[in-house]
Amino acid sequence: MAVFPDLLTATPLSDAAAMRLAIEAGQRVRGTTYPNPPVGCVVLDAAGIAVGAAGTQPAGGLHAEPQALAMAGQRARGGTAVVTLEPCNHQGRTPPCTAALHRAGVARVVFAVSDPNPVAAGGSAWLQQQGIEVVADYSRPEVADGYLRPWLHWQRTRRPHITLKTAATVDGFAAATDRTSQWITGAEARGRVHADRSRRQAIVVGTGTVAADDPRLSARYDSGELYDNQPLRIVVGRTEVSQEARIRGENFRQIRTHDIGVALEVMADMGLIDVLVEGGPRLAGAFLQAGAVDAIESYVAPAFLGSGLPVTAGPEHTSITDITRFRTVSVEQLGADVLIRAVRS
Amino acid sequence: MAVFPDLLTATPLSDAAAMRLAIEAGQRVRGTTYPNPPVGCVVLDAAGIAVGAAGTQPAGGLHAEPQALAMAGQRARGGTAVVTLEPCNHQGRTPPCTAALHRAGVARVVFAVSDPNPVAAGGSAWLQQQGIEVVADYSRPEVADGYLRPWLHWQRTRRPHITLKTAATVDGFAAATDRTSQWITGAEARGRVHADRSRRQAIVVGTGTVAADDPRLSARYDSGELYDNQPLRIVVGRTEVSQEARIRGENFRQIRTHDIGVALEVMADMGLIDVLVEGGPRLAGAFLQAGAVDAIESYVAPAFLGSGLPVTAGPEHTSITDITRFRTVSVEQLGADVLIRAVRS
Ligand SMILES: NC(=O)c1ccc[n+]([C@@H]2O[C@H](COP(=O)([O-])OP(=O)(O)OC[C@H]3O[C@@H](n4cnc5c(N)ncnc54)[C@H](OP(=O)(O)O)[C@@H]3O)[C@@H](O)[C@H]2O)c1
Ligand SMILES: NC(=O)c1ccc[n+]([C@@H]2O[C@H](COP(=O)([O-])OP(=O)(O)OC[C@H]3O[C@@H](n4cnc5c(N)ncnc54)[C@H](OP(=O)(O)O)[C@@H]3O)[C@@H](O)[C@H]2O)c1
Repeated sequence: MAVFPDLLTATPLSDAAAMRLAIEAGQRVRGTTYPNPPVGCVVLDAAGIAVGAAGTQPAGGLHAEPQALAMAGQRARGGTAVVTLEPCNHQGRTPPCTAALHRAGVARVVFAVSDPNPVAAGGSAWLQQQGIEVVADYSRPEVADGYLRPWLHWQRTRRPHITLKTAATVDGFAAATDRTSQWITGAEARGRVHADRSRRQAIVVGTGTVAADDPRLSARYDSGELYDNQPLRIVVGRTEVSQEARIRGENFRQIRTHDIGVALEVMADMGLIDVLVEGGPRLAGAFLQAGAVDAIESYVAPAFLGSGLPVTAGPEHTSITDITRFRTVSVEQLGADVLIRAVRS
Repeated sequence: MAVFPDLLTATPLSDAAAMRLAIEAGQRVRGTTYPNPPVGCVVLDAAGIAVGAAGTQPAGGLHAEPQALAMAGQRARGGTAVVTLEPCNHQGRTPPCTAALHRAGVARVVFAVSDPNPVAAGGSAWLQQQGIEVVADYSRPEVADGYLRPWLHWQRTRRPHITLKTAATVDGFAAATDRTSQWITGAEARGRVHADRSRRQAIVVGTGTVAADDPRLSARYDSGELYDNQPLRIVVGRTEVSQEARIRGENFRQIRTHDIGVALEVMADMGLIDVLVEGGPRLAGAFLQAGAVDAIESYVAPAFLGSGLPVTAGPEHTSITDITRFRTVSVEQLGADVLIRAVRS
């Protein structure tokens, strides 16, 4: 079960507060549900108290709505279901969520993003035909530009969604020229990187990073303990990864190409939807120049180095028209550092 | 008069809300009061309604407190004075503010930063001796790391406070390699740069920037109209600035040296307390390497160029111990861009 009793409340919630909890529920199952969407659902009783909260189970398991409804039981009657994605209207491995909502007697359904999948869509119209009040597109940008973006992108393109992570000084250096880089970003930023890894399907680096740093690329808590969900670790490049490299193991793959289009196809064939590219500079530059970066998570340290390892390696000559721009979605201070999340505009 | 009727209220304010207004009043006179501190003062009546609001007048004029008290009149009696700096206790060109507060009958004084100037200090103790309740250090970090920092720095060191402004992509480029840079940051960020200039005493660039861009370095509104307060425009470097350069005029100075310590001394002799260095990369790098940057205002565009004009030119070889770190004070999204304000730690 992917139910979250800790998200239930003793007092009534606004739709906005309930949607925040539904997003939290969806975030918690992110990385474990693909190719199904990581939906979050909160059921409010008639008074607005959260009496059910759940996220999608791994493929073949239950959707978020029936789990949250089961938790709510009779208290769902006359209440509201708040969901990050339009409830499905389709008899698949599981019965349609719309029918479950109707049977449970909810009076209102509030959701963030319409289902782009024509097979599953139509839930909103069907619910309204049953006399249920439907509020669509509620908090849409936050969900569509946020944690549900990789799945929505994949629905549209059948290509993996690539997030480029960078961590650098204001003057754009990820390390000094002698390659030392200890604590350019602080403990809070590093903790966030590991939490983020735990929600991805795969992490990608170039052979240069493996040779230089011998990283594990696992998702770890401060204590060193591993997160439950460990992403696939993918190395791109032709150089053979050493048999002793710490990145090797059951979660390890190598893609032996310099062609980013080919690498994306291989990742699509692996069933990857949500991929994080962590560098180094040459691989990051290659993804950017191929137009293959869909979102960025950029950690900026309020510091200057003056020279060093660039965050991305680019062509020798550029004009302003060569710029790759993103649209800022959120800005957050993490200790001394700043995390800028932005999506391709 | 530097009184601000638009800051008065019809309803009672918390101390926190009143301090925000006092900071706003102080900000409005910033850049016009030096060597006096740009203090802001709000007077609340006994019910907490803002009945007086003022900032320091230019040197020789009135302090903030007597102006705000004059505005409040009888309504100050039993009320609260909220001030960004400890009221002065010193008979100078103007009578002590402490005596004025006592005479007006205020019951409480709330201030953010203690006066570091031994001549003016002691106000807090004197007020308490008169039976007035004093709340010290209220919102201290916001004021001391914020708009009052240059004056506090100068009180301590008798050197100008240097803020380095940068505007660059996430990968640290202020322009492409062909020097094109149109719209790396957007309209909101550019508007903020001009507003910030209008609050400084001087703006500094190197001769390289003047030769390349022929900038005016004035503080202008979107309409092109000039702000009332125009900073001094200082060029550092040995190359003669062309007679046709747009930067020339009554507000123009050149400092013909490469020694940043000497440049700081010359600026101190000019009576400068609050100075903004706007680049280019070589001059910015020289200030950083001299340890002469006290704060940064870094505009980061969520974009990548891959190569280009660096935001600061540094030494050819660096180790991580060469890093110059700042402590983040605030982070703000301005359109697509991000403004990071940080101070030397
Ligand atoms: N501080 C940080 O956040 C951070 C993060 C990551 C890395 N780093 C640093 O980055 C440095 C390594 O830099 P790097 O640039 O050598 O590492 P890299 O980008 O990880 O690896 C470069 C390699 O990627 C392969 N590759 C695959 N497709 C490519 C393409 N289209 N274009 C170019 N290369 C492609 C090539 O491998 P083959 O030659 O094998 O074909 C190339 O040699 C290390 O010092 C590491 O510490 C820092
Ligand atoms: N996009 C932006 O935000 C932005 C902002 C500013 C500038 N820029 C760009 O920056 C470029 C100019 O770069 P730049 O580095 O030549 O400009 P710069 O830093 O403005 O000027 C360099 C000059 O500063 C003088 N200088 C004084 N003290 C120095 C020291 N200690 N070390 C080195 N130089 C010192 C030298 O002048 P002398 O040789 O005369 O002695 C030197 O040639 C232009 O393309 C301009 O567009 C961009």
